[in-house]
Formats: sequence, C-alpha cells, structure tokens
Amino acid sequence: MSGADEFELIAALASRLDPAQDGLGIGDDAAAWSPTPGALVVATTDMLVEGVHFRLEWTSPRDLGWKSLAVNLSDLAAMGATPGRALISVALLPGQTRLVEEMYEGLSDLARLTGTRVVGGDTVRTSGPLVVNVALIGEAAPDRLLRRDCAAPGEVLVLTGEVGASAAGLALLLEGDRDRLGRPETAPLLTAHHRPMPRLAAGQAIAAMGLRCAIDVSDGVASEAGHLAVASGVAITLEIDRLPLHPAAVALFGEAEARRLALSGGEDYELLFTVPDGRLAEVTAALGGQVRATVVGRVVGLRPGGRVDLLSDGRVIESGQPGYLAF
Amino acid sequence: MSGADEFELIAALASRLDPAQDGLGIGDDAAAWSPTPGALVVATTDMLVEGVHFRLEWTSPRDLGWKSLAVNLSDLAAMGATPGRALISVALLPGQTRLVEEMYEGLSDLARLTGTRVVGGDTVRTSGPLVVNVALIGEAAPDRLLRRDCAAPGEVLVLTGEVGASAAGLALLLEGDRDRLGRPETAPLLTAHHRPMPRLAAGQAIAAMGLRCAIDVSDGVASEAGHLAVASGVAITLEIDRLPLHPAAVALFGEAEARRLALSGGEDYELLFTVPDGRLAEVTAALGGQVRATVVGRVVGLRPGGRVDLLSDGRVIESGQPGYLAF
Repeated sequence: MSGADEFELIAALASRLDPAQDGLGIGDDAAAWSPTPGALVVATTDMLVEGVHFRLEWTSPRDLGWKSLAVNLSDLAAMGATPGRALISVALLPGQTRLVEEMYEGLSDLARLTGTRVVGGDTVRTSGPLVVNVALIGEAAPDRLLRRDCAAPGEVLVLTGEVGASAAGLALLLEGDRDRLGRPETAPLLTAHHRPMPRLAAGQAIAAMGLRCAIDVSDGVASEAGHLAVASGVAITLEIDRLPLHPAAVALFGEAEARRLALSGGEDYELLFTVPDGRLAEVTAALGGQVRATVVGRVVGLRPGGRVDLLSDGRVIESGQPGYLAF
Repeated sequence: MSGADEFELIAALASRLDPAQDGLGIGDDAAAWSPTPGALVVATTDMLVEGVHFRLEWTSPRDLGWKSLAVNLSDLAAMGATPGRALISVALLPGQTRLVEEMYEGLSDLARLTGTRVVGGDTVRTSGPLVVNVALIGEAAPDRLLRRDCAAPGEVLVLTGEVGASAAGLALLLEGDRDRLGRPETAPLLTAHHRPMPRLAAGQAIAAMGLRCAIDVSDGVASEAGHLAVASGVAITLEIDRLPLHPAAVALFGEAEARRLALSGGEDYELLFTVPDGRLAEVTAALGGQVRATVVGRVVGLRPGGRVDLLSDGRVIESGQPGYLAF
C-alpha cells in the first residue's frame, strides 16, 4: 500500500478513534460540537510540509504564513463558521528564525483581515523540512452549520468565484519559465496560488440563508463534487462547460487546459454548495454583491456510494465512482 | 543567536501577534477565552519531532501516541481545565503507516482514560523526521482558571506526586546499558518517561478549592518555579531537600543525582502550585486520596522580574534570576 490510499487509511482510522456522541461534522471540513446549549464550536487543523506542500524557492515566507492560515479558514468557510482562534506550531531548522518571523507576519496579515486571533502555539527544532501546523477554532450558529452530507435531489450545484487560477499558477512554477513567470498576466495566477482568500463571508451568507450543504474546493472541482456525492449518497452531474474559469488561466493555457486544471488541480478555495432549484435567484442575488455564483451542475438523484457524471455539450463524457474519474 | 534564545524569540513574537482582548492565559500553559458568558474555552498545542523530542529506537509507537497527548493534557491540568477535543496532525514517511496506526492506538488509550475525544486531524507526507502535533481544546469554569501569574507572598509552594523519574528514565536510555535497562527496578522510570499520566484530577481539585496559581512540571522543578516567579513577579525559595524524589531514581542514581534530575531534568508532568499558608491542611487532605502533595518551598516576597533561591539545609546554595540557575 502506498500513495493516497495509505494516508486515507490513517485518516479513516483517526476519525474512528472515539467518535464524539455529541459531535457533528466528523469527516467534514472541520469538526463541530456543542460545549453548551446554543453554542457550536468548529475546529480544524492542517499541516504543511516543505517539499510536499510548498517549496521555499517558490513561496515567500510571508505567503507561506498567509496560506497556512488560509487553508484552515477555508475549512471554516465551508462549514459556515466564523473564526476564531488559532494555535500555530512550527518545526524549524536552526538559522530559520528570520524566515519564521516573516511567516508569522504573513499569517498575521490574514488573521487581521479575517478577525482571527493567534492565541498560542509551539515552536520546536527539527533536523528536516520546515513544518507548519495551524489548528483553528471557530464558532457557528447551531442550526446553521454547513455540511457535506446533505445534498439532495432537485438541488443545483453552485460554485463561488472562479476556478483554475491556483493550479495554473502552480503549473507556471513547475514549468519554471522565467519569461512567462515575469509577465504581468501571470501575477493573478501566482497570487491565487500563494495567497488564496478564503470565502468566509460567502460561507456565512450561505449558512444564514438556511442552505445546508457545502464544501471548499481544496482539491479539484471534480474531486470535491465527488466528496459531496459520496457523503450525501447522491448522483451529481457536473456541467464542465459552465465552470467559471479564471480568465488569466484561459489566456495563458487555453480553455481546455484551464478546464482540466480547474477540475483536477485544486487549491482554488472557492465554495461548492447546493441550492434548491426554486431558491437560486435569491441566492445569486444575496451573494452577487460580494462574489460571483455560477450553477455548474445538479443533484439528479439518490445514489448510495455516490456518483459524479461529467457533462459537456449535454453529453456524459465521463462518469463513475468519485475518486476514479480520469479528470 | 542560536539555541533556546532563538526559539524563545519566535515564541514571544507569536504570542504578540494579535493579543486577544478577551483572552486569558496568553503566555500560560494554555490559552483561554470566553466564547459566551459563563463558558471558558482552554486550548493548547504541542509538536513532537523525531530525533528532537523522541527517538523511535527508544520509544514504541504506542508510547509516542500516549505521550503526544499527555503533554497537552498536562497543560490543561495546569489550568484546572477538563478535556476536551483533540486534533491530531502527523507528517510521516511512506512506509510508516503501521507505525502511525499504533501511535493512534496509544493516543486512543489515554484519550479514553481521560475523556478526550479525537475529532479531527491531518495526515500528510514528509521526506524528513516523523512529526506529531496535537491541538487540544478543553473547558474550565470561568472563575476557576489556574494561572501562573498569581503566586503571592505568604503562600507555600506545593508539588504533586514524585519527581525525577522521567529524567532518570531518559538518563538510562541515553546511557544505553542493556543490563541496567533490563532490570525490573528501571521499569517505573521508563514508564514515567514514556507514558506520563497528566494530573487532570489534581488540577481540577486545586481549581475547585479556589486556588489560583499552578504550572505543570514539563521542564525541571527549578525552571518551573522560575516561570511562576517571573510571571507572578515574586521571589520564591525552593527547599531542595524536601523534593519528593521518586524512590527508583534514588535507588539507581543516588539521592544527589536524583535531586539534580528532578530540578533540571523535567518531563515529570506533576503540578507545582501555591497555597495560602493557612489552607495547607485542607489542600493536602483534599488531594491526599488521589495524590501525594509535598511542600517544597515558599513565596517570600514581591520581586519584579522574579527570583528563585535554592535552599539546602536552611542555606541558600544558589540564587538568581530564573533561567540562569546552574541547576
């Protein structure tokens, strides 16, 4: 056993350890529980490892700090929660003090913008790659928690913002062509990759409207649609021609490649959520002021185990169990 | 700048990032805040790195899991808090799946014993040493939080349990003498090092009695007395002849070396707390049923910046600013 399977096994084991009877959202973007009636605590954690999740040649320490908090905030956004207190752990080599100070500054930039307070942490030595762990604790209204296990037939699938930009930025970095990297039109793609802006306000607005089902796009859109389908036990059609592709990704890579990056690349940190058909106008109006909302698919029926069909031009171009799609 | 200074600088920076106006316990064993009136959330995090905090040649995966949770639980114990929900992050090499599964089992053993629920986490790949981060969230009664900044003149300094065992266990491991390691009298020392039992019940009892000031002994007793002195701005005398040394540490290393290990070795995870002189009998009676409580010193006066004097046989054998003691 190796690769993703190995890690999924461990994640499954961890989540089975001692499921909280009063817990919500186990296996969701974040864990949630009620310490007292009327209060709902939401908590999440993400660990970033140098060489696996970031490269110091590509990422400034300040951007690393921003992103390490952003990925956690995005999990809270997907639950409709508000930040929050953060605990930051860092394992660093001797000599990386200044680097870590700059990292904290970038983290602090996003903390201030989002009302997150850094209340503690741990700073330890290592002999290996830099490791940053953020644990983030937020709150949600008890009857307003967004989950991934409640998509229902008759709902449409809606995506915030634009997708493909972060994966396009990563593709440029992997390509390593300094001329292309220096061109002004690449800047939004690199920013999308290095300094994603979690959709906290959109998540809270979605929750406040009484919608129930959302996930953040940390993997590609196809994969996240698959997570919704599996958790909810539904079949989803994803109309790939309707994906709101980032124009800079289309300009630099062409539409087909930009679509592939959006479907399978990930790290866009947009929200993918479901809306009863009749409430679509209300939702787009409510979100319209702050973020574009695009219908990208539909929940077509119950389907134990989940299923996602990718549609292009009205035809199914690929379908199957989530996790096995070529995209 | 190198060594401890470097890390203290970063820790100080992190804690200054954006101090919460409604926060308590910044710079304490754990952070605490009130999400709603009448509720107090307490949170802490610790990161353990292979080769720095543990060695896989010495520590079984099961013990590693136990200890990674125990050190966090001890921080909650020192605040008088109850666990709690835990988020576990692990960075592992390919091929370490079974090891990490066993680690989770050890962690789960202690979680069950202490009423801690593992509600989430992150499992990621690394190319370097194994890294385990635990973030732990607990609760405390708002008027019953133990802190390190409120030791007052006229109070005596009390220590739970016995000290020196964990450092003696580590000394045996460093020594690497297989004959000595195999002897039955070393077992309690190795257990103390690998599977410390956080003093949660004692911490809660101390808090319930209305006492206010405590710290856990993660560093040596002299160092922890120093932390209390600095945070509270008091002078403390520590009567080193009164330290409750673990008998196995004395038997194997002699009394003088066992005392040195207790003062400077650390990782005993006992509680060091202060008691108004007149309430000592009440406290020892209340704790007597579950844990030994020994008077080891006294808060002798106010002292901005803090001070600790080590006393032996009634004479000061060493004194000065905490952090500069040879012990």
